[in-house]
Amino acid sequence: MQDTAIRYQGRFLRLIERDGWEYIERTNASAVAVVVAVTDDDHWILIEQHRPPLGQAVIEMPAGLVADIVGAEDEDAVEAARRELLEETGYAAAEISFLTAGPPSAGQSTEIVSLYLATGLRRVGEGGGDASEDIIVHRVPLDDADAWLADKAAEGCAIDPKNYAGLYFARRLRK
Amino acid sequence: MQDTAIRYQGRFLRLIERDGWEYIERTNASAVAVVVAVTDDDHWILIEQHRPPLGQAVIEMPAGLVADIVGAEDEDAVEAARRELLEETGYAAAEISFLTAGPPSAGQSTEIVSLYLATGLRRVGEGGGDASEDIIVHRVPLDDADAWLADKAAEGCAIDPKNYAGLYFARRLRK
Repeated sequence: MQDTAIRYQGRFLRLIERDGWEYIERTNASAVAVVVAVTDDDHWILIEQHRPPLGQAVIEMPAGLVADIVGAEDEDAVEAARRELLEETGYAAAEISFLTAGPPSAGQSTEIVSLYLATGLRRVGEGGGDASEDIIVHRVPLDDADAWLADKAAEGCAIDPKNYAGLYFARRLRK
Repeated sequence: MQDTAIRYQGRFLRLIERDGWEYIERTNASAVAVVVAVTDDDHWILIEQHRPPLGQAVIEMPAGLVADIVGAEDEDAVEAARRELLEETGYAAAEISFLTAGPPSAGQSTEIVSLYLATGLRRVGEGGGDASEDIIVHRVPLDDADAWLADKAAEGCAIDPKNYAGLYFARRLRK
């Protein structure tokens, strides 16, 4: 029999203890949709934003919570991917396809991240995120992405390791 | 001025609220070392283990907390990588080199993951982890890794998205 207890219930996260393990789950979202966005001229769309937990700017792929909008709890993850890409980067995608889904931090969180490939991109806005976000959009030549990430790290940005998963899928697309 | 408060202090995790953001940090470790282990005959070493937060078997790269052993708080992350690779998979590495480090879940955790490449591998034990772990070791041909991960997902395993970052670095090594 498993002994599961909620040790803290916050607005966005709850901390759970189960059989001696401590972990968190989100209170307001079922998953995170992350977008590997590649333009027709082989540029990869990344974002840079300040992340309060780290107190640092982080280089990430466009992403957002699935079903985090009140009244849209049934929103499909593909639509979340499409919406976040548009809001954060200003790019509309003709095609969105599923790549993989899984737990990026299985030892401490129930979080599931789903990666989607976005192609047929058309810039229709400035991006920058919603009212609570302040996002810089980067358009990185796919062939130079590895060096570009290393340069951003040297500048003091944190680099989400998932970016290299994105780079794997972006390069696979181009083979 | 930032308003930071510890909302829950557990044994392994504490939940913090800062300026309206909720996030966690580990109480007992500074980082996580993850090992991209590639044999001389182009096999990639992965592990499969049950993860209580998910209630599911997860396919991951060998990994472990840095400085989580009492009395070894100054342990270098490279040594943690070497130790975890040996404990979990039974492989000793002749060379360990740094690949990248960053936050896999910057919205909800201060966790920093460091990826290391391990080469010059020699199997010296069975692996399987320490007394609290029950780990299956997989030896996957690098060329078939993408299909192998998809097969494991179809079998019902969760696939850590960082595996694809590992695959990026493993393939880069072989170019």
